[in-house]
Amino acid sequence: MAEVNHPEEYRVAPNFQIRAFFDSAPPILDAADTKAKLNEFIHRNYLAAGNDDKASRIVCVTSGGTSVPLERRCVRYIDNFSSGHRGAASTEYFLKSGYSVIFLYRRGTCQPFCRDLPDNALIECLKYNDASSLQVDHKCAEVVRRAITEHQAAVAGGSLIKLPFTTIFEYLQMLKLIAELLRSIGPSAMFYLAAAVSDFYVPWESMTVHKIQSGAGPLDMQLAQVPKMLSVLRSEWAPMAFCISFKLETDKDILLEKADMALRKYGMHMVVANELLTRKEEVTVVAPNEKIIVKRDESQVGADVENPLINLIVERHSEYICRLNQFACK
Amino acid sequence: MAEVNHPEEYRVAPNFQIRAFFDSAPPILDAADTKAKLNEFIHRNYLAAGNDDKASRIVCVTSGGTSVPLERRCVRYIDNFSSGHRGAASTEYFLKSGYSVIFLYRRGTCQPFCRDLPDNALIECLKYNDASSLQVDHKCAEVVRRAITEHQAAVAGGSLIKLPFTTIFEYLQMLKLIAELLRSIGPSAMFYLAAAVSDFYVPWESMTVHKIQSGAGPLDMQLAQVPKMLSVLRSEWAPMAFCISFKLETDKDILLEKADMALRKYGMHMVVANELLTRKEEVTVVAPNEKIIVKRDESQVGADVENPLINLIVERHSEYICRLNQFACK
Repeated sequence: MAEVNHPEEYRVAPNFQIRAFFDSAPPILDAADTKAKLNEFIHRNYLAAGNDDKASRIVCVTSGGTSVPLERRCVRYIDNFSSGHRGAASTEYFLKSGYSVIFLYRRGTCQPFCRDLPDNALIECLKYNDASSLQVDHKCAEVVRRAITEHQAAVAGGSLIKLPFTTIFEYLQMLKLIAELLRSIGPSAMFYLAAAVSDFYVPWESMTVHKIQSGAGPLDMQLAQVPKMLSVLRSEWAPMAFCISFKLETDKDILLEKADMALRKYGMHMVVANELLTRKEEVTVVAPNEKIIVKRDESQVGADVENPLINLIVERHSEYICRLNQFACK
Repeated sequence: MAEVNHPEEYRVAPNFQIRAFFDSAPPILDAADTKAKLNEFIHRNYLAAGNDDKASRIVCVTSGGTSVPLERRCVRYIDNFSSGHRGAASTEYFLKSGYSVIFLYRRGTCQPFCRDLPDNALIECLKYNDASSLQVDHKCAEVVRRAITEHQAAVAGGSLIKLPFTTIFEYLQMLKLIAELLRSIGPSAMFYLAAAVSDFYVPWESMTVHKIQSGAGPLDMQLAQVPKMLSVLRSEWAPMAFCISFKLETDKDILLEKADMALRKYGMHMVVANELLTRKEEVTVVAPNEKIIVKRDESQVGADVENPLINLIVERHSEYICRLNQFACK
């Protein structure tokens, strides 16, 4: 492969840039509460598993896009498009594989077990027969049943915790909090970073307080780069965790090359490369010394690419745990 | 009042700018279908009303924020924050006042009669008692009943039509389409423009096709101003319609002055001035030669500012119709 030089993008962010980002970010609300809930979730699930390796694993799935406020009293913001479908679907398969899931999602995006619901499902699918009996439209019957019963089973069973975010500031602070807590379970922790994270932002301290006025002609905006947090997640926050990041491009010619770079520079264990237009059909998993194409099973109605993708990832996570724990591996 | 000079913002957009915007916009899907549905809606409601003045009125309520794509294969976009709560609430009161409503809303925002539903209401509020009977959690019972029964009554009764948009391109093309159709009912038409419309955009033809790369350091973006369409709505698309626009600011010192300017320069009949932090408590309605403060009724639990606001607007619309039609007015 020809030597490719992307010095800026793959530069590991210096510590001072990362500190500056967190120092200037508006603090998240209820941090102490969230931390206590997470702590309880992690220890209950990890300890309850006993010697059951699969059940002791906890994955943090990030999902949806982060937004970047352009004004402190936020009217305008830059957003990254993501329906959250990938994260929601993957969460379902991780739960089926026995993992507990910390689902860190953008408010308003797709929820696990709810992928097939129409917009505004409550008013589109339900009606009252009489004063007390609700009926589901037969067109939605199956998706409504699945959403309600499977979602509730996961939450009631204590294996799914959901934490919402909106801005890049909330997302990165939450990710750091989760990572520092998951650190204690070593290689049983996984990060599956499917969220579409903003590359550019306006530092809070340089942000205008009031709405930007439209009076002065064209708008000229300068945005700083968000420091890449993947390397610090690997090196400091949770060094033993198994880490999978995503690379989405619209131009397939640069996709694999960029995924490969991300793998090496950030020390990811796997990078899932997906192209905007075909991402529901296939992805390429880039791991050290291999590239694996994962396709959805076209012979099955409703089959999705997340099913074989999570199977592959769980298998590799098992090998990773074996290697690190020196378990007797198959 | 001191003379204030805002030559840029309140300049009426030259026709060539408006033409250029529409010429370069990606065309909306299903335009012919939407036009046919709208035509049917308008004529059915207007004609069925006969001599009933109130029932012959049709208001187009716009709601939620428009988004501006930064890339053609859209990954990133600039968004205007708006929950759509104002538009949804106002739609309910217009329906109660006998109007038919064309609800032009941003996908994913608040729907009429659904304002009090929690996020993800379907999975949060419902459960199956047994295989076939759905039960509503008692905490949500009232809001779920209201959402389903009142929303369905409005849609089934034929007085509410809902049309979604996402981008500024879709929004303005839909608005033009609706306005040119509502033109035929003269002063019985109203525009209640509560949507948060982008002031800046990237013209489609100058937009990058692929995802902007984050490799090259800080991002410098230049955005063009969206031509102000309010004046062309008044002068060409639907010259007889009663028009209400909104002005949202975070800085109350400039709010009323800007609302007043908008009234005069765009020929609005009323401008609703609202400040970000207090907008659910009170608004100021700016009309020619008057400013009316409208507050929610604090003595009533659950009372909102949209109730008295729509009462005031309906009253003024009545006067306007009387004046134009030379009806015998009270």
